[in-house]
Parts: sequence; structure tokens; C-alpha cells
Amino acid sequence: MARRTLSDLAQLTGARLLGDGGVLVDGAASLAEATSSQISFCALPRYAPQLEATRAAAVVVPPALSERRTDLPRLVHPDPNVAFTHVCAAFAPVRPAPGPGVHPTASVDPAARLAADVHVGPLCSVGPGAELGAGSVLHAGVHVGADCALGQGCELFPGVVLYPGVRLGARVRVHAGAVLGADGFGYEPPRQRGGAWGKIPHVGTVEVGDDCEIGAACTIDRARFGVTRLEQGVKLDNLVHVGHNCTIGAGTMIAAQTGLSGSTSVGRGVLIGGQSASAGHLHVGDGARVGGQSGLIGDVAPGAELWGTPAQPKREVLKQTAELRRLGALRRRVEALERRLAELGQDTEVQP
Amino acid sequence: MARRTLSDLAQLTGARLLGDGGVLVDGAASLAEATSSQISFCALPRYAPQLEATRAAAVVVPPALSERRTDLPRLVHPDPNVAFTHVCAAFAPVRPAPGPGVHPTASVDPAARLAADVHVGPLCSVGPGAELGAGSVLHAGVHVGADCALGQGCELFPGVVLYPGVRLGARVRVHAGAVLGADGFGYEPPRQRGGAWGKIPHVGTVEVGDDCEIGAACTIDRARFGVTRLEQGVKLDNLVHVGHNCTIGAGTMIAAQTGLSGSTSVGRGVLIGGQSASAGHLHVGDGARVGGQSGLIGDVAPGAELWGTPAQPKREVLKQTAELRRLGALRRRVEALERRLAELGQDTEVQP
Amino acid sequence: MARRTLSDLAQLTGARLLGDGGVLVDGAASLAEATSSQISFCALPRYAPQLEATRAAAVVVPPALSERRTDLPRLVHPDPNVAFTHVCAAFAPVRPAPGPGVHPTASVDPAARLAADVHVGPLCSVGPGAELGAGSVLHAGVHVGADCALGQGCELFPGVVLYPGVRLGARVRVHAGAVLGADGFGYEPPRQRGGAWGKIPHVGTVEVGDDCEIGAACTIDRARFGVTRLEQGVKLDNLVHVGHNCTIGAGTMIAAQTGLSGSTSVGRGVLIGGQSASAGHLHVGDGARVGGQSGLIGDVAPGAELWGTPAQPKREVLKQTAELRRLGALRRRVEALERRLAELGQDTEVQP
Repeated sequence: MARRTLSDLAQLTGARLLGDGGVLVDGAASLAEATSSQISFCALPRYAPQLEATRAAAVVVPPALSERRTDLPRLVHPDPNVAFTHVCAAFAPVRPAPGPGVHPTASVDPAARLAADVHVGPLCSVGPGAELGAGSVLHAGVHVGADCALGQGCELFPGVVLYPGVRLGARVRVHAGAVLGADGFGYEPPRQRGGAWGKIPHVGTVEVGDDCEIGAACTIDRARFGVTRLEQGVKLDNLVHVGHNCTIGAGTMIAAQTGLSGSTSVGRGVLIGGQSASAGHLHVGDGARVGGQSGLIGDVAPGAELWGTPAQPKREVLKQTAELRRLGALRRRVEALERRLAELGQDTEVQP
Repeated sequence: MARRTLSDLAQLTGARLLGDGGVLVDGAASLAEATSSQISFCALPRYAPQLEATRAAAVVVPPALSERRTDLPRLVHPDPNVAFTHVCAAFAPVRPAPGPGVHPTASVDPAARLAADVHVGPLCSVGPGAELGAGSVLHAGVHVGADCALGQGCELFPGVVLYPGVRLGARVRVHAGAVLGADGFGYEPPRQRGGAWGKIPHVGTVEVGDDCEIGAACTIDRARFGVTRLEQGVKLDNLVHVGHNCTIGAGTMIAAQTGLSGSTSVGRGVLIGGQSASAGHLHVGDGARVGGQSGLIGDVAPGAELWGTPAQPKREVLKQTAELRRLGALRRRVEALERRLAELGQDTEVQP
Repeated sequence: MARRTLSDLAQLTGARLLGDGGVLVDGAASLAEATSSQISFCALPRYAPQLEATRAAAVVVPPALSERRTDLPRLVHPDPNVAFTHVCAAFAPVRPAPGPGVHPTASVDPAARLAADVHVGPLCSVGPGAELGAGSVLHAGVHVGADCALGQGCELFPGVVLYPGVRLGARVRVHAGAVLGADGFGYEPPRQRGGAWGKIPHVGTVEVGDDCEIGAACTIDRARFGVTRLEQGVKLDNLVHVGHNCTIGAGTMIAAQTGLSGSTSVGRGVLIGGQSASAGHLHVGDGARVGGQSGLIGDVAPGAELWGTPAQPKREVLKQTAELRRLGALRRRVEALERRLAELGQDTEVQP
């Protein structure tokens, strides 16, 4: 296992070292899990109790926490999260990057075009007319359909499926099991009682912009016509469903298991919490924030902060939740009023 | 790119042509996205503003909208949706249908039986005793277990997995990454504190009726005993979970990310919105409609329209949501009543 | 098809036989679906009507129901569920267990280490440095990354993907399409308006304890650093998402489509219903029970029984739901009070 001195790590991260720079550490871990040979970090004052208790050999801390564990060497950095990311990378197992070449067990159609330095792993298939950009990597068992186009530096993990005609920009990462370009869920209603749904052909495609990252087992359906589009820098967590003809604006992040119904249009820089859903044919404005498990049934204003099903402004949901918890008490107050008023009514009625 | 005259498209769709039939178009797109060489469509009056603004070369419209964009040639059709489906198909990229044959990289057990004109793509596996119906297509990387049976004309997309013994009817389409026949989620509780869950063997199977379509990354578990069954014409969107021993009636449609717990029985012609769930061992009556993100915890009457968790009649949910939004105001009204009554009480108490 | 006498089945299950032990049955099915040559079972008195109506040749019943269908031979057992499990197994199709060996179409890196009696099916890939424990089975199309380690007796179904470095204990079963070890969903926020999210490297891994079972199409992300951990005997249903750095305690069961956000810590013996979610960085105490579609936004006490979004004690949710259904009526009562009080106010005001 690699070992690093704290002086090395201070230099690597740009942190200020307090304490013995010669101390060697052999790994990075959380405050609670770190052993006496590992380095940890504390970014926020609310984790100070864990900082006090950690058995780590050293810690990365912000200036505000730099005098807490003076028994340990400390790396002081204004953004411990970022510094620790570099520390972690220093201890990451080094695995050789996949080199250029096509594995003998892969099946690459002669009419596919592979740019320089492409890696096609074991048991992949690449269809006719597909183009793989320079330096792209297909790990094992990736299936790229006919006429797909990958920009340079894409990385597709095992089991990814691109249906024919899907296009990826540069440096797109698609995690294992994700499916891009399956037919959208669209059928003509039965024309008579008991009849069958008529399949609507989906002749559009999927386009993914530069620097997008798509989580494991996501499904992004092809458009009925035109394009289901992710603009550049979109990040999808695992198991996200994107319906046909959706568009997702640049830099938007969508957490796991969210589903966008067909023709949802999401703006730029939007954050959507996990297990949320949209009803389809609606627009989410730029910079909106949608809490987890929300259900959007109408347009969302730019910058709005929503939660719940049907989604409402988050502060309204919190108020309503609080009111709902007191609703039994409110009902009892109304009953007391009714009793009191009945008594009063009797009083006043007998007065004349 | 293919180009078509409007006269051609009028003939193809059965639409009435208003304007110059010699105009050539080279693609189909939405009103907002269509370029000056494409054709678009408008099905509903509420999209009339987009119809007014479109830059399309021509439009498909219903009779009610046929005099809106008289500057453009129009295809007038009573159902513009259907007509446009045919238009889209005319511009779809033509890709050769997979021809019969077994790709040399596929692994087909000698004891599998392949009917005429079956296509087995690259890197597929077919287990012993499996039967593939005439004209069936396995795209790349499909895994068909031992003793599975596919009817004629089935189409399985890359990465589909059928566990042993799963049976598909005719013309079933299964999209990429779907898994049919994994064990149901059933365990005997630990017999003592701290003990282990005991696995319940699942010796049943999955049967899928004719003309079903199953979305990408769906999971349909095998029955504990007997059959998990989809009747004919069932349509599942992506990432739908169907538990062990469920049955889904003919023509039922289930939107993305819905989950049916074990032994749920869904009737015919039911519509279930996305991210809904059933609690298991319950029945959903024929023709019921369940809104998105609903949670069913009891039987559903035929034709019922439900929403919410726990699911209730949709009109009740809408009423309750409206009441809930006014609940803070109601509480303040009760407080005003309490104050007023306290004053009155003082008044009346001094009256004698 | 195999046939068994009831005497055989009585001996197999340890049940007491009432009636003709020479009767032959050829399958097992539910009370409603059993034919006259099959055996069924009834575990609970509430299914007694179906017991009365079944056409089965014989039934497994508890002592309390042993005198209901005296026209049929009965196997009487204190736990009919368990007995029927053995009955079902007796009729399960017998498929030869995968024998040891590496299929010629598999791609196993020379630097992988395979213990005795390992089965590597068609079209699998196994990376350098991977270790497969004795008797482990990789069905078709499984991808095991570099440096992964599988304990003895593991079984991985088609399409499973293990990213590099993932470690499984003994007897772990992973169902088709599950993905273990993809990067967690973590990005540094853009440093300026319109900037890009910075990818946080995920250099940790995933460890799964002995006797865990992971459902189809689950996704379990690798830790940012350290380990995303499932302790022994954890059972995950299908399509469950486990975020980076989560820990799940021994014997916990999680139903389908649930998602755990990053750094969620779930205790031992917890039951979580389907489509639930945790907000991340929270702890669920040992033995807690979480209802389906719940949303956890804070720590959960050991043994607590929660439901809803945001999750609350189940009895509170049921009360609030009941109150909410009467809220319209309550509002009308308040309006009546207001009217009555206005009248009273007029009365009392004119009294002096």
C-alpha cells in the first residue's frame, strides 16, 4: 500500500501544515473509520465532536478548526473537501488506463469508424456506421448500435447499450447498464372497446452534450421525432428515467430514481432531488430546486424551490406539514367551541 | 436525407392537401423546432400560438385549424397525431432489418431449437432447451436461459436477460436491460433473534402474452410457484418492477418506475401512472386509472380513478389538497373564534 | 413431469397425512389456480373460503384447518408455508447445476485467480487480479472488474457488473443487471455562475457480506473513500439504489425501488418498504420498520415504525390521514360557528 508523508500531502493540496511533516499515512478515511495510520478530514464545525474523537493519524481542517486537535498534525485548508479529494486520489489504487486497441472477443462491424487510440474491451459490439471518437473507451460488454456517434474521450462502462443513431458529445461518461435510445412510451389508444394499443413509431434519437455523466441503469428514451436532448454538463444519478422528447439544460443535476415524463423541458442549472417525477409536457425554469420525492404537475418558475406532491413552494409544504400535525388538536378546539357556543346559545336564548 | 413532396405525404396519410403539393420537405419536427425545410403538426387548439410562430415548411392540422397558417401548405386530417406518425415514419432512417442467422460470436447451446428466420446477434447466449419462434430477433448481448420459449416475431434488445423457463408469446418486444424471471423477494423470517432470513425457493416462472412491450431495465420476477403473468397487449414503460406472482390483465399500461409488490393482481385496460406502487396481495379492477406516485394499499374498484398515498378517489385528493393549503388560515379563524367567544363569554357572564 | 405420492410428500415435509397417501400429484399451485392433479396449501384462516373452493387434489393445512376439506387428503403441518416450500421444491424443474469450467467464449484475464470448481459461463469477462472463490458461478455475460474478490459459493446472474475492486463475501447472490461499484454521485459546485460541476473522484469501493442477496438491476455505488458496505445477510429487492458510503446492517431487508442517499447508515434487522428514500447522512436504528414510499429526512430511532414523507410514526400518519379526510367538514363547521357567533354577537350587542 502506498504511503505518503504529510509534507507531501501538504504540497499536493496546497494546505498549510501544522505539526510533524514526516509522519507517514497509508490511507484516507472518515473521522469515524480512520485508523491510526490514516488521514481524515473535517469540513464543518458540526462534525467537531467526531474530530475530537477520531483516531486518525492526521486531519485536514479549515482554519476555524485548526486548533482543535493540537495533538495531531493538521493540514489547514480553506476548503477541506477539495483538499481531501486530492488526498484520496493520492491513495487510490493505480490501475493501468485501458490502452488503445480492440479486444479479440469484441465484434466491431467493418463499417464502423474508430478514431485513434480507441479502446474496445472484451465482448463489446459496435454496429455498422458507428463512429467512436479519439481516445474513447468501451469497457467490457458495451453495445453500440448502428450509426451511433461518440465524441472524443467518452467512457462507457460494462453493459451500456446505445440503440442505433444515438449521439454523444465529448468526454461523456455512461455508467454500467444505462440504456440510451429505447423507444419512448407512446401508443395510440384502442379504437374500440377491448381493442389493442397501437404502437407509435419513435423515429427520433437521443443526443448527449459534452461532459455529461449518466448514472448506472439510467434509461433515456429516443424522441418520437426530433431529439431527446441533454445539454452539456448534465449529471444524472443512477436509475433515472428520461422520457421521449425531454430536454435537460446545461449543468442540471438529477438525483437517483427520478423520472421525467415525455416532453418535459428542464432548464439550466436545475437541481432535482431523488425519486422526483414530472407529469410531462411541462417546463422547469433555470436554477429551480426540486426536493426529493416531489411530483411536478405544472410549470416551475426559474429559481423556484419546490417540494411535495403536487409540488409547491418548499416553505408552504413545511407550513402545511406543521399545520397537519396539529390538525387533530385543531379539531378538538373546534369541538370545544361548538360545545361552548351551544351553552352560550342556551344562555342567550333564555334571556328574553 | 430523404425528401418528400407534400402530395406524396398527403397520399401517404390520407390527408387533404391545401396549398402547393410540389413543396419538398426533408424531415419532421415539432412546431418549435422545425426548420424551413421540415413539416410539423398541430393537434390541439391550445398549441395554436406555436402554430402561428412555427418556421416549418408545412403543417398537419385538424379541420378546426386549417385556416390558421394560410401562408403555408397544410395537410388537413381529422387526427393529426396519427397522420404525423405516418409522416415521421416516412423520414425515419432506413436500417436493414436483421437478417436470419446466428452471429459467429453468439453462444447457442446445441440443445436449443431455433425456428426459421431467427436472428441471433453478436455475443448472445441461448441455453439448452430454449425455443426461439419464427422470425424472432435477438439483438446483441441478449441472454436467453435454459428452457425458455419465445413465440414468433419476438424482438429482444441488447442486454435483455431471460432466466430459465420464461415464456413469451408472439410479437413480444423487450427493451434493453430488462430482466425476466429473477427470484421473487421472499424469505422466511429468522427463527430466533439475530438469526438469518431463510430463502424461499422460487420454482414458478414468468409468462408474457402476445403483443406485450416491456420497457428498458424492467424487472419481472418469477413466481414462488405457478406463474407471474402478463396477459396480451400489456405495455410497461421503463424501470417497472413486477413482483412474484403478480398478474396484469390484457391491455393494461404501466408508466415508468412503478412497482407492483408480490401477488398484486391488476385487471384489464388499467392505466397506472409513473412511480406508483401497490402494497401486494391486492386487486386493481378493470379499467381503473391510478395517478402518478400513488400508493395502493387496498383493492381498487373497476373504473375507479385514484391518486395519492394512500390512494383515494382523485377528486377527494384534489379537495383535500385545496383544504390543506387553507389550513393555516382555518386555524387563524378558529383562534379568532376563540378570542371572540372568550369576549362574549365575559359579556354573557356579567349579564345576569 | 414428475409425480409424487402424498405419502412421499408427507415424509418430505414432516407433515401428518390425513387421507389416502397413495394419491399422486404432479405439481403445486395456489388454491385458486390448482388443478385436480396438483397440491395446494392454506396457511391462514382468512383464506378458508378459497380452501373450500379449491379444485386441488390435496392441500397442506395447519391443525386449525385440518377438518375443513375432509373430502381431500390433507398434509397437516404447523407451518404450511414452510412445508409448501419443500413441496414446491420437489416439483421444481431439475436443471443441471453449472459444472466447473470456463466457457470458451468467456474472456478471463491471465492474471485472474480462479479457485476450485468455479463456473464461468459464456461471454463473461474477468479482469486482472480478480479472485473467484471456490464453487462460485458466473452465469452468462457477467463482467467482473480488475481486483474484485468473490468469496466461495457466490452466484452472479447474467449481465451483472462489478467495477474494479468490489469485494463479495461467501454465498452472495447477485441478480441480473445489478451494478456494484459505479462512481458515487458527487461533484464540486461550479466556482462561478455558469461554470461546470467538478467531478469528485470516488476511490473507495463496495463490500458485501456473506449470504447477502442483491436484486435485479440494483445499483450500489462505490465510496468516495473507504467502503460502501452491506453487512452479512442483507437482502435487497430489485432496482434498489444504494449511494456512496452507505452502510447497511446485518439482516436488513429493503424492498424494491428504494433509494438510499449517500452516507446513509442503516442498522441491523431493519425493514424498509418499497420506493422509500433517505435524505443522506442520517442513521436508521436497529430493528426500525419503514413503510413503503416513505421519505426519511432525519435519524430514525431503533425499533421505530415510520411512514410517509416526511416520515413520521406510522400511527401519527394514520391519524393525520383520517383528520385530513374530514378537513372539509371541519372547515364547514368553523364556518357554521362563525355564522352562529355573528348572530350571537348581534344578539348580545343589542341586549344592553
